[in-house]
Amino acid sequence: MNSATIETLVEAAHTQEFNAWVRNQQTHIESVLDKALAPNTNLPEKLISAMRYSALGGGKRIRALLCYAAAELCETEIAIADASAAAVELIHAYSLVHDDMPCMDDDDLRRGKPSCHKQYDDATALLVGDALQSLAFSLISKENLTKNPATQLTLVHTLANASGILGMAGGQALDLSAVGQKLTQQSLEKMHQLKTGALIKASLLMGAANGNAAQKTAIEIYAENIGLAFQVVDDILDIEADSATLGKTAGKDALSHKPTYVTILGLDVAKQHANALFEAALLAIAPFEENANLLRGLAYLITQRSF
Amino acid sequence: MNSATIETLVEAAHTQEFNAWVRNQQTHIESVLDKALAPNTNLPEKLISAMRYSALGGGKRIRALLCYAAAELCETEIAIADASAAAVELIHAYSLVHDDMPCMDDDDLRRGKPSCHKQYDDATALLVGDALQSLAFSLISKENLTKNPATQLTLVHTLANASGILGMAGGQALDLSAVGQKLTQQSLEKMHQLKTGALIKASLLMGAANGNAAQKTAIEIYAENIGLAFQVVDDILDIEADSATLGKTAGKDALSHKPTYVTILGLDVAKQHANALFEAALLAIAPFEENANLLRGLAYLITQRSF
Repeated sequence: MNSATIETLVEAAHTQEFNAWVRNQQTHIESVLDKALAPNTNLPEKLISAMRYSALGGGKRIRALLCYAAAELCETEIAIADASAAAVELIHAYSLVHDDMPCMDDDDLRRGKPSCHKQYDDATALLVGDALQSLAFSLISKENLTKNPATQLTLVHTLANASGILGMAGGQALDLSAVGQKLTQQSLEKMHQLKTGALIKASLLMGAANGNAAQKTAIEIYAENIGLAFQVVDDILDIEADSATLGKTAGKDALSHKPTYVTILGLDVAKQHANALFEAALLAIAPFEENANLLRGLAYLITQRSF
Repeated sequence: MNSATIETLVEAAHTQEFNAWVRNQQTHIESVLDKALAPNTNLPEKLISAMRYSALGGGKRIRALLCYAAAELCETEIAIADASAAAVELIHAYSLVHDDMPCMDDDDLRRGKPSCHKQYDDATALLVGDALQSLAFSLISKENLTKNPATQLTLVHTLANASGILGMAGGQALDLSAVGQKLTQQSLEKMHQLKTGALIKASLLMGAANGNAAQKTAIEIYAENIGLAFQVVDDILDIEADSATLGKTAGKDALSHKPTYVTILGLDVAKQHANALFEAALLAIAPFEENANLLRGLAYLITQRSF
């Protein structure tokens, strides 16, 4: 695929209509999450308040958007898409709360606000993360979401593996042990495949629940490339952007001597690498023509992070 | 039910055969967990090692035993019982790891060994808890555990609700906010129903997956009473036992000014209360005669904690 073709694809995808879809879905997932986290007098007041503080009202909802885009392509029913999108956003929110804690990244700022343990306290932040994880599994295991409980069970299993030692938590452990180490590009890639890639892939595969084999295979390849691209761009932004734009403390990776794509490849090669991953993601979904336009638009947003 | 009847029931239940069953099931669940936590070169080495340290080789496995006893009464298939028993033990293990952390109970000793964050470090302990929770959901959502995926989905939902804000994490939050407060017996009971009761109830209900309505209702009443009895006995032991016997730091509740059944009711009334809960649990399962002997024996073990 040459740059002219990519440009055409991106132009086709990145329309006003697409932008409106993004805004709509962001509002929609917010209301799904708001409902899932509705406070009531039976719930411990401080904990539900801290869970809402951490999971609502912020974030680009990339994972939910990917889930909805895959659901659109695969004609997955809305109940499954909503529960999956909410579940992956809750898992993501829990990981941010725990990652920000003093014993982990010790980050005071998240999405431009005090992180959960700063706004509340460490013990509450610990429980917030734990309870958000449980809530994710509660949402997608709800009775009668779909006529096919076997499908739903697969969603639970996909999410559980993407979250645990085979996925996000495993990647975070590799990240911790990488501090101050010299990593090869391969080790860095494995770490990121687990730390952020696994949940991004789960978001897409859960959205693709009703897809056929060709759709699922294509989405898996798209997911792997877009997942890595997301991280490469994150590393680039950590160097190039300031804290105000990021909504979190910039330059943290360099300060904490974490290996990144930029430290391993250099800034220019890292940018070329992000672009190559973007192209590979687009190639995988090319056969679905205009039905994959949402996924195309999201690939663009992820690699540009322009919203 | 008078004391003579109780004595007869307990004698009937607390036989050599029962004790052998307990030891067998303890060995069995250990091997199920050992398999679920098998290290391999694909897994982050430190994390899997710390997960094994925290979830294997210790504990009375009360929750697994309750699950297996309910499964025996309800003729639930072994694959469901194994996955459920392992899942509740993993959730329990994760809660201990997080509870012991400096920002929570700050406890250095667990089951006679350094607690996870002392043996490893705080960041690893945080991840161990997170990953053990995910693993619990991975185990019970495994494909083809049963011919009826709807049943399996109910197990996931039961466990998720028992673990999160509606259960264990919610109870832990109430516990945190209770430090230094004067609680009524009712508030204390609500806190414990969530903090320990919910997971004990889930253990029994998951084991009872194949039960009929009468069996499930009886097991639910048994669960509620035995769950509270467990906590009352815990409070009594915290005063009466020493650290060596408990395998954890004794007298912590009093030191941290946490309200307990003993501080609210006094030691003697607390003991009477434990006994009344024990009797109510036995009464609920009386109709099942000798088929409920395992549950009877466990009620006795829980209120006596004699093994």
